Amino acid sequence: MSDSHTYKKIEIIGSSPKSIEDAIKNALAECNKTLHNLEWFEVVDTRGHIVNGEVAHYQVTLKIGMLIQSDH
Amino acid sequence: MSDSHTYKKIEIIGSSPKSIEDAIKNALAECNKTLHNLEWFEVVDTRGHIVNGEVAHYQVTLKIGMLIQSDH
Amino acid sequence: MSDSHTYKKIEIIGSSPKSIEDAIKNALAECNKTLHNLEWFEVVDTRGHIVNGEVAHYQVTLKIGMLIQSDH
Amino acid sequence: MSDSHTYKKIEIIGSSPKSIEDAIKNALAECNKTLHNLEWFEVVDTRGHIVNGEVAHYQVTLKIGMLIQSDH
Amino acid sequence: MSDSHTYKKIEIIGSSPKSIEDAIKNALAECNKTLHNLEWFEVVDTRGHIVNGEVAHYQVTLKIGMLIQSDH
Amino acid sequence: MSDSHTYKKIEIIGSSPKSIEDAIKNALAECNKTLHNLEWFEVVDTRGHIVNGEVAHYQVTLKIGMLIQSDH
Amino acid sequence: MSDSHTYKKIEIIGSSPKSIEDAIKNALAECNKTLHNLEWFEVVDTRGHIVNGEVAHYQVTLKIGMLIQSDH
Amino acid sequence: MSDSHTYKKIEIIGSSPKSIEDAIKNALAECNKTLHNLEWFEVVDTRGHIVNGEVAHYQVTLKIGMLIQSDH
Amino acid sequence: MSDSHTYKKIEIIGSSPKSIEDAIKNALAECNKTLHNLEWFEVVDTRGHIVNGEVAHYQVTLKIGMLIQSDH
Amino acid sequence: MSDSHTYKKIEIIGSSPKSIEDAIKNALAECNKTLHNLEWFEVVDTRGHIVNGEVAHYQVTLKIGMLIQSDH
Amino acid sequence: MSDSHTYKKIEIIGSSPKSIEDAIKNALAECNKTLHNLEWFEVVDTRGHIVNGEVAHYQVTLKIGMLIQSDH
Amino acid sequence: MSDSHTYKKIEIIGSSPKSIEDAIKNALAECNKTLHNLEWFEVVDTRGHIVNGEVAHYQVTLKIGMLIQSDH
Repeated sequence: MSDSHTYKKIEIIGSSPKSIEDAIKNALAECNKTLHNLEWFEVVDTRGHIVNGEVAHYQVTLKIGMLIQSDH
Repeated sequence: MSDSHTYKKIEIIGSSPKSIEDAIKNALAECNKTLHNLEWFEVVDTRGHIVNGEVAHYQVTLKIGMLIQSDH
Repeated sequence: MSDSHTYKKIEIIGSSPKSIEDAIKNALAECNKTLHNLEWFEVVDTRGHIVNGEVAHYQVTLKIGMLIQSDH
Repeated sequence: MSDSHTYKKIEIIGSSPKSIEDAIKNALAECNKTLHNLEWFEVVDTRGHIVNGEVAHYQVTLKIGMLIQSDH
Repeated sequence: MSDSHTYKKIEIIGSSPKSIEDAIKNALAECNKTLHNLEWFEVVDTRGHIVNGEVAHYQVTLKIGMLIQSDH
Repeated sequence: MSDSHTYKKIEIIGSSPKSIEDAIKNALAECNKTLHNLEWFEVVDTRGHIVNGEVAHYQVTLKIGMLIQSDH
Repeated sequence: MSDSHTYKKIEIIGSSPKSIEDAIKNALAECNKTLHNLEWFEVVDTRGHIVNGEVAHYQVTLKIGMLIQSDH
Repeated sequence: MSDSHTYKKIEIIGSSPKSIEDAIKNALAECNKTLHNLEWFEVVDTRGHIVNGEVAHYQVTLKIGMLIQSDH
Repeated sequence: MSDSHTYKKIEIIGSSPKSIEDAIKNALAECNKTLHNLEWFEVVDTRGHIVNGEVAHYQVTLKIGMLIQSDH
Repeated sequence: MSDSHTYKKIEIIGSSPKSIEDAIKNALAECNKTLHNLEWFEVVDTRGHIVNGEVAHYQVTLKIGMLIQSDH
Repeated sequence: MSDSHTYKKIEIIGSSPKSIEDAIKNALAECNKTLHNLEWFEVVDTRGHIVNGEVAHYQVTLKIGMLIQSDH
Repeated sequence: MSDSHTYKKIEIIGSSPKSIEDAIKNALAECNKTLHNLEWFEVVDTRGHIVNGEVAHYQVTLKIGMLIQSDH
């Protein structure tokens, strides 16, 4: 069982009134407060809330991968 | 980063001998004991266990979304 | 609400330089250190890292189901 | 071009605090006010809104098929 | 080859004018007349027939799993 | 907002006792009676009705794209 | 349980050197020799065998639905 | 049937030479000219047109949800 | 209708405490007792049962294709 | 490593004003000019261009499999 | 075979520390060095690398379509 | 455009009479003869050829990612 890595994936939705990239950054910033070893994200879904015919928020669903164990 | 919300989605399977709706309610009731700010659910899968040619349990897989952070 | 069970599913990636089965076993062994009542796994994705044209690691993404509540 | 039928499919979301079936019925009742020749529906998605850990509304997304032309 | 089980899955559509659960029960009751060892079902598709703007029948497509061999 | 185009997609099912291509043509001919600027179609589903062990109708579900706005 | 219908779906691959429609017809003709009450088909997959850079056979995978029980 | 909402979803493609977000905004602006109560959008597909090896237009397919009926 | 082949696909789940390959072999061995002309298999799903944090059984769902008719 | 075969799959779009089959044939004829050992194709997508409410071109996306290595 | 076009699709991953659009542009710029007649792209997957809780790179997987033959 | 990487993905099918892992290794070994900078693989499909009720070959379809450009 030497030389193996174990990762966990969680599903998070970030939002932003500005852009898709900003919604991703907000989600990562929030996760980074309490979780360690975040390594990658995958965009699962992109949607948004409309107010008065305009985008009020982009809502981006991410899977975030983090290292939970490493044996060298 | 003002005016952003972050949500987390978890995957839960509820069961019930009565109905699909009852399996959903059982899953939510169990989650509500320890988790806060549950906001929505999505049915991912519906299946069940058969005994003597009849439905013994409906088993409903849900994704449950909860608010984990809100900046106004 | 009698006779209902509630399960949770988490998403884990195990790795191994040896085989797909070994990557699954490594992921389960790691989860078993801190989680209880693991009941089943589902293979979601199989991929790997290549070094010098050979498989360096198999990386297997699993959903793992565990019992979190049981009323009899 | 004799003996052909043409159908249109629209996508509607019905809701109900009671059940999945009631959400479907509400969607059909609303469509039936202004559309004719509704022939079948397909459930595309089932989700719901949670308030205080309980189902506030079931929300069922349907595709509804209707006959728009028939040549015999 | 000791300690292995083999299952077969078949695809069945049950219908009912009453509910989704009743359509599932009707499908299982019909299969149970001629097949043995039915163990589980998975809902693959839910649709229905509309007459006069109302649900005439729910039609639920199931995969049904049955044990066909068991070595202990 | 100069130099942008907006398209709408609708979902139509055409049928024909002759061929898949004829079912597509029938669907387009029917849409062309009332809609303008049809630009492309995508085949979403191909199925058919069987009578006496033979194909009675091919039924082809299409998404049809049409231009609804153009700014040059 | 009055007024319910039960259908079975099977998966068949028909082939033809001529056309996709001919491969569908061949599959239905073969099924019709031993099965009754064939009602509809759904095209699941279309592929083919190539010999000398030309189509040797179209191979069309169908799900075929048949009535297995009807209560009026 | 009190306390139910019915929504309709339509499928629209917006384009922009500038960005994915701008293509979304253009699609919403066009829909907002003739439709009311737009509430949310879902990104279904992102693609684009290439001229001289550069992005000429981003083309974003959206599903747009709008409220068509509300009983309180 | 000369030079056409018709195949049937069935869905089988094999299991093994040893490996994914062994679960596939067990499923084929069981089918081969009663069915003829098995030609290919497709892995549809790989999952397993966990006991005491270890793999108790690999469960592999296969579609198995068999020739049911051949005209030369 | 004896007795193994390696195949490559490429993705090609053929078009034809006549039929789906003709679009497939055109794609294969073009590939056959420069590639060898084409063995099978899989239809991935079928769409088309509309001019004046009629099909101008069928556009069929294929994956084409070819043998690139064979050890006996 | 007159009036037909043949296209090839390749799968490319572009990356950028700045934005999703920039990752797309980088992928196209790289392809444009050696390939001709690039006509469109489709976003297949969007993910990224995380360093210190921030996006280090956006990684966008594209299918890129190019004209390989045109008969007028 | 500094600090960007571009990757290409190709689709390869490896085969082996021994195991799924061996089919993957054979595919990589063949690609490594002519291609450079292979970095990862993704298993897309696992199937096999049956002879006399036994697995004659495992056939594993892989997407293989390779670095085609790197700017530091």
